Amino acid sequence: MKFTDKLLNASRKNKSWLCIGLDPDPELMPGVDVLQFNKAIIEATSDLVCAYKPNLAFYEALGTEGLAILEKTVQYIPGDIPVIGDAKRGDIGNTAKAYARALFSVLGFDAATVNPYLGFDSIEPFINHKDTGVFILCRTSNKGATDFQDLRTDGLPLYEAVARKAQEWNIHGNIGLVVGATYPEELKRVRSICPEMPLLIPGIGAQGGDLASAVGYGADARGEKAIINVSRQILYASREKDFARAARNVAEKIRKQINDHRNKAG
Amino acid sequence: MKFTDKLLNASRKNKSWLCIGLDPDPELMPGVDVLQFNKAIIEATSDLVCAYKPNLAFYEALGTEGLAILEKTVQYIPGDIPVIGDAKRGDIGNTAKAYARALFSVLGFDAATVNPYLGFDSIEPFINHKDTGVFILCRTSNKGATDFQDLRTDGLPLYEAVARKAQEWNIHGNIGLVVGATYPEELKRVRSICPEMPLLIPGIGAQGGDLASAVGYGADARGEKAIINVSRQILYASREKDFARAARNVAEKIRKQINDHRNKAG
Repeated sequence: MKFTDKLLNASRKNKSWLCIGLDPDPELMPGVDVLQFNKAIIEATSDLVCAYKPNLAFYEALGTEGLAILEKTVQYIPGDIPVIGDAKRGDIGNTAKAYARALFSVLGFDAATVNPYLGFDSIEPFINHKDTGVFILCRTSNKGATDFQDLRTDGLPLYEAVARKAQEWNIHGNIGLVVGATYPEELKRVRSICPEMPLLIPGIGAQGGDLASAVGYGADARGEKAIINVSRQILYASREKDFARAARNVAEKIRKQINDHRNKAG
Repeated sequence: MKFTDKLLNASRKNKSWLCIGLDPDPELMPGVDVLQFNKAIIEATSDLVCAYKPNLAFYEALGTEGLAILEKTVQYIPGDIPVIGDAKRGDIGNTAKAYARALFSVLGFDAATVNPYLGFDSIEPFINHKDTGVFILCRTSNKGATDFQDLRTDGLPLYEAVARKAQEWNIHGNIGLVVGATYPEELKRVRSICPEMPLLIPGIGAQGGDLASAVGYGADARGEKAIINVSRQILYASREKDFARAARNVAEKIRKQINDHRNKAG
């Protein structure tokens, strides 16, 4: 099944645009190991989400064991929920091919994030896996995003040049974009340039992005294809033994907030 | 010891600007396992290089075992030869911190490559490790480099804006840049913007970059701090049992070519 179909199915079934970022930080966990923590979070929330998104950095920081935990985490996620590997890879053609293999074939992600700085041949090996999704970083949620992404190139900010290229490169229909909720106007611009792509929207919660505008500007014309990612606010809602229940409560609350905004918008 | 000192020591001792890219591709190897292959290459060439540069993609593509092979490869490299982890990571602050930990503390690299697209807070956690080096992608060696890196931003191409920011951010003196040998004029420009930084220069060999201009334009004012990376041309010089000897022969030849160009230039 193509990534976008899997995403829409999960999103409709669970009535959810919420994606949970599975970013384990042992220092913030109660006394359980990382795999047990992830499993408990998944069990407690898999009927509330449209996707999960593990960020590879947090697994790599755990050493060789981390990658095994990541593999087992991906396998533990129910088969009808898409898993986005947040890897932000970007390398030249031959190497990008190895990264695409690592993310899609070895780790089994349904989609991955990639960095556009190296241009088309760094992204082509990913989009050539036609059934998996490829989210290109466009306008990120962090402060440093302004350093280069906002520079004017021929009158347009760089992130808009990226969005236009992504639209042009989307011959297999499997490209999406990453646009932070912390910059609502930029999100609106990107949605107007790429009306049909799935948008992965981080920056709600710990980073302070605005949920109402993320929902209002993020959706496509049919009121779908916005993926709102929340990580720490859900994972570490409690640092006690009840962490999974606390995570579920927060996830439920955010899903409801998103749906309330959708109802207002729709 | 600071990365730049370690680099200069190895470069002077071995009279070499050659860096070998340890990018294992089992399909191109004679019938040996990847770790044995890497060990044989290191044994055959460690007196000929100023650094080694494993690209993480090729290890990740081997699955969880790949990371263990990478760790053992790094440990096997003699302690006086710096090892550059070619990871091209780039993520927001909290996550970048986890990547820096993974690359410097877990895997033990002396330096790493990073992607500038997310701006300063994606790079700061790396430069805060003051003794390790951070090579920021500036003008890459691939065809797609022109898609965004050459776009004019306020009159300057984006890669020059990156070089200028890198110069500004280099308060700990541990930043270097990646500039491909396939674009000599761009290399010359970058060296004029950043006269003292180490430059990591891929693109010689399989990618067809010009060695004479890489040497001529890559060096700093004292005729140092250029790192010429070659991977496949050396690793896969022979696909027979004599692969290590064949690799040494090619490495010796390229080191001599580099030094001949240095003598002409100097």
